[in-house]
Amino acid sequence: MQRTKVKDLLQGAAVDQEVLLKGWVRTKRGNKFVNFIAVNDGSTINNLQVVADAEKFSEETLKDVTTGAAIAVTGILVASQGKGQAFEIQASSIEVLGKADPETYPLQKKAHSLEFLREIAHLRLRTNTFGAVFRIRNTMAFAVHKFFNEKGFVYMHTPIITASDAEGAGEMFQVTTLDIANPPRTENGHINFEEDFFGRATNLTVSGQMEGEVAAMAFSDIYTFGPTFRAENSNTTRHLAEFWMIEPEMAFYDLKMNADLAEEFIKYVIRYALENNREDIEFLEQRLAEEDKNKPQNERQEMTLTEKLEFVVNNDFERVTYTEAIDILMNSNHYKKKKFQYEVKWGVDLQSEHERYLVEKHFKKPVIVTDYPKDIKSFYMRLNDDGKTVAAMDILAPGIGEIVGGSQREERMDILVERMKAVGINPDDMWWFLDTRRFGGCPHAGFGLGFERMVQFVTGMGNIRDVIPFPRTPQNAEF
Amino acid sequence: MQRTKVKDLLQGAAVDQEVLLKGWVRTKRGNKFVNFIAVNDGSTINNLQVVADAEKFSEETLKDVTTGAAIAVTGILVASQGKGQAFEIQASSIEVLGKADPETYPLQKKAHSLEFLREIAHLRLRTNTFGAVFRIRNTMAFAVHKFFNEKGFVYMHTPIITASDAEGAGEMFQVTTLDIANPPRTENGHINFEEDFFGRATNLTVSGQMEGEVAAMAFSDIYTFGPTFRAENSNTTRHLAEFWMIEPEMAFYDLKMNADLAEEFIKYVIRYALENNREDIEFLEQRLAEEDKNKPQNERQEMTLTEKLEFVVNNDFERVTYTEAIDILMNSNHYKKKKFQYEVKWGVDLQSEHERYLVEKHFKKPVIVTDYPKDIKSFYMRLNDDGKTVAAMDILAPGIGEIVGGSQREERMDILVERMKAVGINPDDMWWFLDTRRFGGCPHAGFGLGFERMVQFVTGMGNIRDVIPFPRTPQNAEF
Repeated sequence: MQRTKVKDLLQGAAVDQEVLLKGWVRTKRGNKFVNFIAVNDGSTINNLQVVADAEKFSEETLKDVTTGAAIAVTGILVASQGKGQAFEIQASSIEVLGKADPETYPLQKKAHSLEFLREIAHLRLRTNTFGAVFRIRNTMAFAVHKFFNEKGFVYMHTPIITASDAEGAGEMFQVTTLDIANPPRTENGHINFEEDFFGRATNLTVSGQMEGEVAAMAFSDIYTFGPTFRAENSNTTRHLAEFWMIEPEMAFYDLKMNADLAEEFIKYVIRYALENNREDIEFLEQRLAEEDKNKPQNERQEMTLTEKLEFVVNNDFERVTYTEAIDILMNSNHYKKKKFQYEVKWGVDLQSEHERYLVEKHFKKPVIVTDYPKDIKSFYMRLNDDGKTVAAMDILAPGIGEIVGGSQREERMDILVERMKAVGINPDDMWWFLDTRRFGGCPHAGFGLGFERMVQFVTGMGNIRDVIPFPRTPQNAEF
Repeated sequence: MQRTKVKDLLQGAAVDQEVLLKGWVRTKRGNKFVNFIAVNDGSTINNLQVVADAEKFSEETLKDVTTGAAIAVTGILVASQGKGQAFEIQASSIEVLGKADPETYPLQKKAHSLEFLREIAHLRLRTNTFGAVFRIRNTMAFAVHKFFNEKGFVYMHTPIITASDAEGAGEMFQVTTLDIANPPRTENGHINFEEDFFGRATNLTVSGQMEGEVAAMAFSDIYTFGPTFRAENSNTTRHLAEFWMIEPEMAFYDLKMNADLAEEFIKYVIRYALENNREDIEFLEQRLAEEDKNKPQNERQEMTLTEKLEFVVNNDFERVTYTEAIDILMNSNHYKKKKFQYEVKWGVDLQSEHERYLVEKHFKKPVIVTDYPKDIKSFYMRLNDDGKTVAAMDILAPGIGEIVGGSQREERMDILVERMKAVGINPDDMWWFLDTRRFGGCPHAGFGLGFERMVQFVTGMGNIRDVIPFPRTPQNAEF
């Protein structure tokens, strides 16, 4: 007989028929007449209840049916008399495929802290919380591809190992096959990277943008979705050394079209999760509500998770220029009462506290801030006619902060080369990037979206380490 | 006015209406009365013809409309009188957005060699051949996600930076933030990796399988699709240092179910490309037919590209055990005439020449070879009852060779630990992997498919460097 998944069984896939269930025991309870075994197979957050009559199954058979054990159950799927589930299985046979010793299996019935579960990231996938998180992550990843596919964007796999640094700075991981204990050296004592695998020094990519721009000049609209790396020693709830980024690049787009696309994209992905992971989101919503009970009244969420997501999907993002944002901040009571830790004036970069004020206090919704001072933004962003600002945009989300960074790209060769030199990049090293301006260049734009930040937003998880299966952070590369 | 893409215009999106076209000039020809400009925007392999009457456009205007230039054209979309296209644009205005100096732009009308185009990988995306290849790659990548999504598999992002080596061997790239010129050392002179970013030595992943197995024990069915790395000094047409791999892992699957899934998957992806990239495939088919003209009769393809793909989609893959395969080889005339370079006997690994004989001469279709001798396969493959073979499978495709490697996994703790030790792996280092057997283990299986090999198969491209945008190979990390 073919196995049927819990998700299908709970939708009444084969009522009053014999079915084969395979999965892992979540709980077992009962009395001397009957045992109730809750089985989960990861297809849904819900368990399927297996009813095992004591007269059919000896204690001997049931003793290994413990939390965490893998079992196969044959029986009739019937409408459930009990509360909490529509269907259950009246078991005729139960086979234990893999035991889970109750003395040593770490995931017992009680709730575990997220910190503890991070230590056993390989097992946390089996909990309700992380099951929900990673089913949602899966849905969102699919939505990313679906969105761009429907729009005719070409998915580009830009290189992971690279000899260039797209941001013109940033701390990078070196990639090498040299013997680090005894590397080859040139006559003057420098490392001889000519003997390295690629014949030069290489790093892990910090962005696929430049290769993406190249591809946009061929396909009009492209996107990347791949891993990206930062070797920053940031032990925060918002940073990973290895994370997944989505970077669309579009020929013939200006900043407004860029912002429109980003807003449409974010709403699409959230809506898709709401439609396809309703139960997972509801579970996480309850989790947050429980968390909130331990917080003082003024720190509790104003909206439930679902309400927050629906609010984002159904409302326009706010759009302000950087200059307007500075005005808002300087006119705020918060500012007047000197509650900002960092300086606020035209020309400074917005700090997290400023972004949060704008998003969470002032607008109470996602905000697209555009036209930042050129000196605090990257060289490749298009210089505005004022000569002071660039056609940049950041999208800030409540509770998360910056979720998107993008810009119209500088397509004018002379200005681009000048700005490269100003930040110390040798234009010759970027010959292929500059070819996009040299040959058939055009106005174009793009953005980068940190996938984990978006998953955080949708799942409500406070720590970015809890939305990627095996997080990579300073001092941590286990699993 | 909003721009319309060539693909939509060629499907008659706005006949007899004014439209805005943006794209790159492929060719310009004409006479003193009229100019014909072929414009491509990457949305399709086909160009849209722009008709520019000499009386409306001065030579001055048209002089920068050269091959490679980016232009914007306004005009009426009309049914075409000429051959080769259904629609064309009667231009009322033409704006050159970015010039492409005919003296220096490398992509002129004449055909370029693939070798030359590899040197300008950033520009080759603008050619018909590579346009077709990467549109097909995009379609196939989407099909990968669509297939698994429809089956309820969870997409897992397994780590790229890892401290473990899933294959138990294999040459790997080191990842480090240490100063290679002057690394910290322990008292005994070894590199002190405790001071490295992750507090230990780390590498780029060679496979996400082990993390995938962990996840399958939570979600039943999962897949990965991400970059994978080999630091092998292989300068061949079949190897990349950085490539994308798809690795599904399924709880409660045996080897046959594994093979069934792999076959269904490959057919699905190919069929999806046939349905969605018909014109691109036809273009590449013509390209191959041209190539064949330069080959001796006996080296030419028996089937066209489309025929080959449809043949694969519409026929069952052949299935043989390794033992049967060895028998076939040893009973072949090829063997009797001593035409195999490498030894054939039970126990040796199949060489490329053997695989090609089986696939291209004997069966003339994809072949699934199962149950290899345990000594030539990985420690994690399930030992068969004969004690000599393991439940492994390789899928071999005509012209490509191995496209899939997979197995039922060894779920029995004692046997697994024994095999680990036999190949020199310390079980303690793999504690989390072994936990999948320790707690709720179950029969399970999975496979890995090299995405580029599959793209090669569908596009007919002979060199794997021509199916990934920016290939990474020994001595080559440009772009």
